[in-house]
Amino acid sequence: MSSTPIKVLFSAGDAAWPAYRKALPKAFAQHNLDVDLARDHAPGTVDYIVAAPNGPVRDFTPYTRCKAVLNLWAGVEDIAPNRTLTQPLARMVDPGLTAGMVEWVVAHTLRHHMGIDLHIHGQDGQWRDHVPPLAQDRPVTILGLGELGTACAQALAQLGFPVTGWSRTAKSIDNVTCLSGDEGLTPALQDAEIVVLLLPLTDATENILNAQTLALLADGAFVINPGRGPLIDDGALLAALDRNIAHATLDVFRTEPLPADHPFWAHPQVTVTPHIASATRPETSALCIADNIARGEAGRPFAHLVDRARGY
Amino acid sequence: MSSTPIKVLFSAGDAAWPAYRKALPKAFAQHNLDVDLARDHAPGTVDYIVAAPNGPVRDFTPYTRCKAVLNLWAGVEDIAPNRTLTQPLARMVDPGLTAGMVEWVVAHTLRHHMGIDLHIHGQDGQWRDHVPPLAQDRPVTILGLGELGTACAQALAQLGFPVTGWSRTAKSIDNVTCLSGDEGLTPALQDAEIVVLLLPLTDATENILNAQTLALLADGAFVINPGRGPLIDDGALLAALDRNIAHATLDVFRTEPLPADHPFWAHPQVTVTPHIASATRPETSALCIADNIARGEAGRPFAHLVDRARGY
Repeated sequence: MSSTPIKVLFSAGDAAWPAYRKALPKAFAQHNLDVDLARDHAPGTVDYIVAAPNGPVRDFTPYTRCKAVLNLWAGVEDIAPNRTLTQPLARMVDPGLTAGMVEWVVAHTLRHHMGIDLHIHGQDGQWRDHVPPLAQDRPVTILGLGELGTACAQALAQLGFPVTGWSRTAKSIDNVTCLSGDEGLTPALQDAEIVVLLLPLTDATENILNAQTLALLADGAFVINPGRGPLIDDGALLAALDRNIAHATLDVFRTEPLPADHPFWAHPQVTVTPHIASATRPETSALCIADNIARGEAGRPFAHLVDRARGY
Repeated sequence: MSSTPIKVLFSAGDAAWPAYRKALPKAFAQHNLDVDLARDHAPGTVDYIVAAPNGPVRDFTPYTRCKAVLNLWAGVEDIAPNRTLTQPLARMVDPGLTAGMVEWVVAHTLRHHMGIDLHIHGQDGQWRDHVPPLAQDRPVTILGLGELGTACAQALAQLGFPVTGWSRTAKSIDNVTCLSGDEGLTPALQDAEIVVLLLPLTDATENILNAQTLALLADGAFVINPGRGPLIDDGALLAALDRNIAHATLDVFRTEPLPADHPFWAHPQVTVTPHIASATRPETSALCIADNIARGEAGRPFAHLVDRARGY
């Protein structure tokens, strides 16, 4: 800890400032950091820069005393190529992003598992006391076992669902049946009753749910997509809703906001949610920034450093 | 293990037989028990009786070889007083009952937490991308910390909710703030945003949610009742829906089925579910019975034995 305040420059768009001017001081206090946070420190006095690609600092050369640049977002594709940025650069890893995703995925998985919509739509005085099956009898498959897919798989397994996870490269996760590679995709989807998409979007994953793969799912299956819109062939999904797919809950789309005339909005078997499954949140991402400043001040290595050669 | 099949007599109402004639043999197989299950063994040959109070066996005297009577339901108030029943008597503890309750409570807690109804009712082409708060910022209080309340408290804490539990006598549960007794009720309810009722119904718990206690809850709070109908003063709840209570999801009622003209059905801030939050399930309760027979055959003590003097 320095005896004079640590000077932290906030260099991001105006829209982010109101939330972060509240969240960052709280996070600094939690780490017992004495910080002078501002948007206009003199460059030669700055110890750390909290940066977004749309912030005012584009030339990092005058920040000669700066120990690290802490990116405000998870993606660094717009800031990593900046050649004036020679200081250590850290990605944002927001625990709130993961927590929010787990909550959204568990909520909609349980909603479909228990048939809650039937009750919400059916408040008509009829006592339909059909008891839903237990989670243990409802196989769930998660495509994508990165940080988000893994966290969701673990939370669903904890609730008793038999969870199968699929990823391009082989993984191993407690209480989750892990399959991988092209040969693992068919067994991962075959007879799955709920499928959750949490894959990154690449050439190999675009339209991974298509006419052929949708047909593998169980009769009455549910599709949940909080990943990326183009993971699903929209036309194939609409057709499958007339066959084996009971309902799709979609948070992401090829075009966002989803146009008001898109057939997903009006389809009785589709629930559109407006890309809210998760978000980077000031309260929790501020903790990631404060943690890294605490590391720097204690002489420990920074977390989540970007490999500048690799670009991420 | 005996070399001849274990004779198990099923003595319950006709309605239960079709499910249990399938579920019990599966459970016996899982325990490697060689069982001859029937509804009509000669009394002197029977090793175990699976019994319900409405079953044909009312006089247990001729079952001289019977090592234990295994009750089919959790409650034993109708069978425990039978003076001809001198064999060890075990209660049903169905893991499926607890699992189903946890699923229902977590599903509706997350549903209200995330405002899912707004999306289900609002598929109108409007992109309302308000991100819900995280569970960590949504205090949940559970009244009742028996087997069901404790399991629900732990599952919700696991998802990140700050959980407070209240019970008549003091309890201690990891990651749950436990309060108890009359003096603990007000702090347990004060500013709670979601309240789940899982108390037994007694003179002391009837109308525990009334005008005064409902007023303690946060503005915009949610009430979830999978416990017992009379825990809530219905009139006080209806009045509170015009004040601080945003929504109530109720599974149990003073009169069941809930009459079609009851105001809960039509109220836009009430969701009625037809006493489905949980149920004793043949698949899982069969495992409880098989486990106890395996214990008996291995010479180990029976589980869940009823204290005949105490009556439960």
